[in-house]
Amino acid sequence: MTKEVIRYGMVGGDLEAFIGNVHRMAIAFEANTRLVAGSFSRDAEKNQKTGANYQLDQDRVYASYAEMAESESRRSDRPDFIVIVTPNVSHYAIAREFLRRGFHVMCEKPLCFEISQAEELARLAREKDLLFGVTYAYSGYQMVKYARQLVEEGKIGDVINVNAEYPQEWLIDELSGTASQTAKLSGWRSDPQVAGISNCVGDIGTHIEHTVAYITGLRVKRVAARTDYFGQPLDLNANMLLEFSNGASGVFWSSQVAIGHMNSLKVRIYGTLGALEWYQENPECLIYTPRGEAPQYLHRGAGFSRAMPPA
Amino acid sequence: MTKEVIRYGMVGGDLEAFIGNVHRMAIAFEANTRLVAGSFSRDAEKNQKTGANYQLDQDRVYASYAEMAESESRRSDRPDFIVIVTPNVSHYAIAREFLRRGFHVMCEKPLCFEISQAEELARLAREKDLLFGVTYAYSGYQMVKYARQLVEEGKIGDVINVNAEYPQEWLIDELSGTASQTAKLSGWRSDPQVAGISNCVGDIGTHIEHTVAYITGLRVKRVAARTDYFGQPLDLNANMLLEFSNGASGVFWSSQVAIGHMNSLKVRIYGTLGALEWYQENPECLIYTPRGEAPQYLHRGAGFSRAMPPA
Amino acid sequence: MTKEVIRYGMVGGDLEAFIGNVHRMAIAFEANTRLVAGSFSRDAEKNQKTGANYQLDQDRVYASYAEMAESESRRSDRPDFIVIVTPNVSHYAIAREFLRRGFHVMCEKPLCFEISQAEELARLAREKDLLFGVTYAYSGYQMVKYARQLVEEGKIGDVINVNAEYPQEWLIDELSGTASQTAKLSGWRSDPQVAGISNCVGDIGTHIEHTVAYITGLRVKRVAARTDYFGQPLDLNANMLLEFSNGASGVFWSSQVAIGHMNSLKVRIYGTLGALEWYQENPECLIYTPRGEAPQYLHRGAGFSRAMPPA
Amino acid sequence: MTKEVIRYGMVGGDLEAFIGNVHRMAIAFEANTRLVAGSFSRDAEKNQKTGANYQLDQDRVYASYAEMAESESRRSDRPDFIVIVTPNVSHYAIAREFLRRGFHVMCEKPLCFEISQAEELARLAREKDLLFGVTYAYSGYQMVKYARQLVEEGKIGDVINVNAEYPQEWLIDELSGTASQTAKLSGWRSDPQVAGISNCVGDIGTHIEHTVAYITGLRVKRVAARTDYFGQPLDLNANMLLEFSNGASGVFWSSQVAIGHMNSLKVRIYGTLGALEWYQENPECLIYTPRGEAPQYLHRGAGFSRAMPPA
Repeated sequence: MTKEVIRYGMVGGDLEAFIGNVHRMAIAFEANTRLVAGSFSRDAEKNQKTGANYQLDQDRVYASYAEMAESESRRSDRPDFIVIVTPNVSHYAIAREFLRRGFHVMCEKPLCFEISQAEELARLAREKDLLFGVTYAYSGYQMVKYARQLVEEGKIGDVINVNAEYPQEWLIDELSGTASQTAKLSGWRSDPQVAGISNCVGDIGTHIEHTVAYITGLRVKRVAARTDYFGQPLDLNANMLLEFSNGASGVFWSSQVAIGHMNSLKVRIYGTLGALEWYQENPECLIYTPRGEAPQYLHRGAGFSRAMPPA
Repeated sequence: MTKEVIRYGMVGGDLEAFIGNVHRMAIAFEANTRLVAGSFSRDAEKNQKTGANYQLDQDRVYASYAEMAESESRRSDRPDFIVIVTPNVSHYAIAREFLRRGFHVMCEKPLCFEISQAEELARLAREKDLLFGVTYAYSGYQMVKYARQLVEEGKIGDVINVNAEYPQEWLIDELSGTASQTAKLSGWRSDPQVAGISNCVGDIGTHIEHTVAYITGLRVKRVAARTDYFGQPLDLNANMLLEFSNGASGVFWSSQVAIGHMNSLKVRIYGTLGALEWYQENPECLIYTPRGEAPQYLHRGAGFSRAMPPA
Repeated sequence: MTKEVIRYGMVGGDLEAFIGNVHRMAIAFEANTRLVAGSFSRDAEKNQKTGANYQLDQDRVYASYAEMAESESRRSDRPDFIVIVTPNVSHYAIAREFLRRGFHVMCEKPLCFEISQAEELARLAREKDLLFGVTYAYSGYQMVKYARQLVEEGKIGDVINVNAEYPQEWLIDELSGTASQTAKLSGWRSDPQVAGISNCVGDIGTHIEHTVAYITGLRVKRVAARTDYFGQPLDLNANMLLEFSNGASGVFWSSQVAIGHMNSLKVRIYGTLGALEWYQENPECLIYTPRGEAPQYLHRGAGFSRAMPPA
Repeated sequence: MTKEVIRYGMVGGDLEAFIGNVHRMAIAFEANTRLVAGSFSRDAEKNQKTGANYQLDQDRVYASYAEMAESESRRSDRPDFIVIVTPNVSHYAIAREFLRRGFHVMCEKPLCFEISQAEELARLAREKDLLFGVTYAYSGYQMVKYARQLVEEGKIGDVINVNAEYPQEWLIDELSGTASQTAKLSGWRSDPQVAGISNCVGDIGTHIEHTVAYITGLRVKRVAARTDYFGQPLDLNANMLLEFSNGASGVFWSSQVAIGHMNSLKVRIYGTLGALEWYQENPECLIYTPRGEAPQYLHRGAGFSRAMPPA
């Protein structure tokens, strides 16, 4: 990418959507970025209104992603990268379209519904030498990166047990048959055809797996799982008994009906020489316990930060 | 029992043993107790030395529990109750002997190796109207009792998920083949014939199950478990996927090789109307989160205690 | 201000400065803002480089704030508001200049060195009906606002004691005579003529006072203070014994040499009917203890948020 | 003292008193102790009832401490040491009496009302080579001892600031004029002639000073204090600004009307090379932050304990 202004386009993410504005804010942390094109909604009025709010030229607000991809790919001031923040079912087709036309792509999760689709997108990005990312954002925390580094350096030895969880409470009302009132799972999120085959495991359980894999390099080898639906079309709670690729054991728990929790992703990794604990609700802290020593509360700030690797 | 001096006897628990002295100290919290008889060890010297240290009359220090049971049962100043703190394999026979002779009994866990033995002891105690306890001591905490009360009062509604664990680190050296140096699992603890068929699950995993059952009244209905031995004769780490009697899901994790933990029993219970969290390392606090409200840190002390039920 | 695009200008804040970019990022949280003019540094090269990086038209990057004020005030697309992020000594003159010309102003602290200057600026803003703010940013936290609301509603009764502190460790190297190596206090920050008469109390101690005043409405009536300089020209540590306007007692402690602390602003307020505790390192939580009840961990998220007033 | 049975006597501490039974329980932690004599109350009935409950020979339950001192000093099986748990005003005379007759003495605090009295008792104990202790029990914690050791080893360098506090809430009802109902300060505790000239500072503020002095070796050199009475005869809240013997600064806060606190003694000591934090409500943990490193949560248990000095 150029070192000057970085241009980007967005597919999905109208003003009423949740995650589009989060991407916009995150990108705005850098001074030299500018949103130049978008196809924010299939609803024409929402689409135009969002484009106007985001200060876009009107002719770069498109009725469809296909039109946007075709038109923008011919411009000299075309976007450097595209952000995809549409409902789950459409991620694959949109990502493929923009990768084919040579745009870098950052796509919301879940990436797709079939392994073969994911492999196709990965191959496409490699062939065209494009950046292609899926937003497993928790691995962006400095202390998660440092946890990974400690594992790589052998500081905790061989991993022997993993205990990780991601409880939330925001869908607790689904349990009592008042879901239609809260409408939290209404629309596409409650429709397996649009949302995909899993809600709790797919939406937040994947963050557990990704964070553990990112830190340890381990893959899940065998699973015994129990998912709870409480009469809803998609899962709201899940417990998993695991064996990892190196033979280590562990459990994953994800829930959207656990009272008292907001985004309580917690990962604890126990090795032969040390242990690590990271908690998303206090993300700048990593607890590292070397074998036979006291726990150290490593913190992105405080004196510790002076010895930290660059972010 | 009388309201004046309460007399007790002890089987096992010589001066070099760990748990005998713990019982002695706990009993000494009351002013009107007195240890009057004991059979502390099959090693005559240790036995005598312990009796002397505990200020016992020499003729009430016995070479065997059988001798002690027979002799003491004929005295008018016989012990009101007997504490059994011997290696696991002998608990059943000793408890049976003293119950048969009409003593109240407090026995260390595990109670026995066969369900039928437990049922026999329970029947014996009921028939003779004797107090008979096994030391699942964590349920003695005021806040564990209060958790049970909150569940009984319906404050958390129906239990839907349980996440409980008991990690320790004290056997971490067993992993590296240096066990023989530390000798922590030497002697009877490493011998399945004396210690019983499980170490980690039997010794600390049972505390998880008991605490959860005590608080919720729920029983484990189905289990999928994975136990890790790391080349030792008995288990050192275990993860369990569970279904409870009411259909709730959950996981239990117990470990003796989890670096950074001492006696980190933690129980979290999630219901349709609220959630409870209790942690053995901060035992006087119970976190209670009513649905739709903020977590409350209920504490045995502070203002909260004024509204507490009597201990 | 208009409801469409909001334009702003910045004085100070070149690319090497710390706080200018923080303001830029904070403003960028809203989609409809745009930086249109600036005078970022008296160093011409830094000034131009910053303007280019921020995508400004070159003719709106000014060599001095006076030139910027004069030129921009004549434009129809002039900035709606001006952000002042220069060294301390210049805040007053710059703020006065832009207020006089009818710009809304957000100024970094400290506002000025004399009470009379502050009063003049406040009068100017009132006369011209302009927004004029100083960045005591901690009072922007939702839970600090909620603490203020609880006090106003009488939930903690009359305040009887305040314990508040703001320890940092970042200047610890000043103690050992290695300051010249770290250069943290070099340049204008170590010069009382530019930085003002206080460093520790002026820079972070004022946050303590502001947060306490914001939450309680109380003013400091009497002070007995002890400031520590450790051989440096400006204070690095300070303890204060206080009497508040309602007769309540308290202490404030601020430090830049307290090992282990980053931005550990903590405010604890004790009243006749309840107590409040807020901690900047866990800012979305407010601990509220009603008299005779358990502490409640009020959290911006979790179930509690449903009952929260709008931000 | 002998290595066999250790005998002790008690002055004060009838069954309705608070602290006598605490001493009895603490002493009972050792197996080879026995309470053999006492003068528990000037109320004859209470005195006798307490002696009986504690299983004493009736002729060793005395109507007065003077009678007890005289009589017991002539016995060959006289107590090895005497515990004094009477109201404040009598401590000096009783301690002097037993020291003169050659008993080791452990006395409740406050020791006396005049410096000269304390010096006399100290001299007496030295002359007769007797153990003489005052129950500043918090310095008995293993981690407080370890904090002292770290300071002695130079691990935190020179102390530059101390922040310490002991808030409680138990007398909050005194504020609202309902004291006579709760009777918590009724009787001798509310009478300066019996309790001494201070309540809050004398009872708990002294623990702050003792703990800080014990850990750091520093003495308070200058004090500016503010004590709050809220219309009661004795102080209920106090803030102090301090200069220590080495020139370090600090504040002490003690309170009996701070809602949410039980026995929240907390000591934080900041030095040029490190910082220490110890909190009585989590007493087995000591937080040690070396300069430029992460905080370490030193714990009496966990792996850390293996490297601990013997208790």
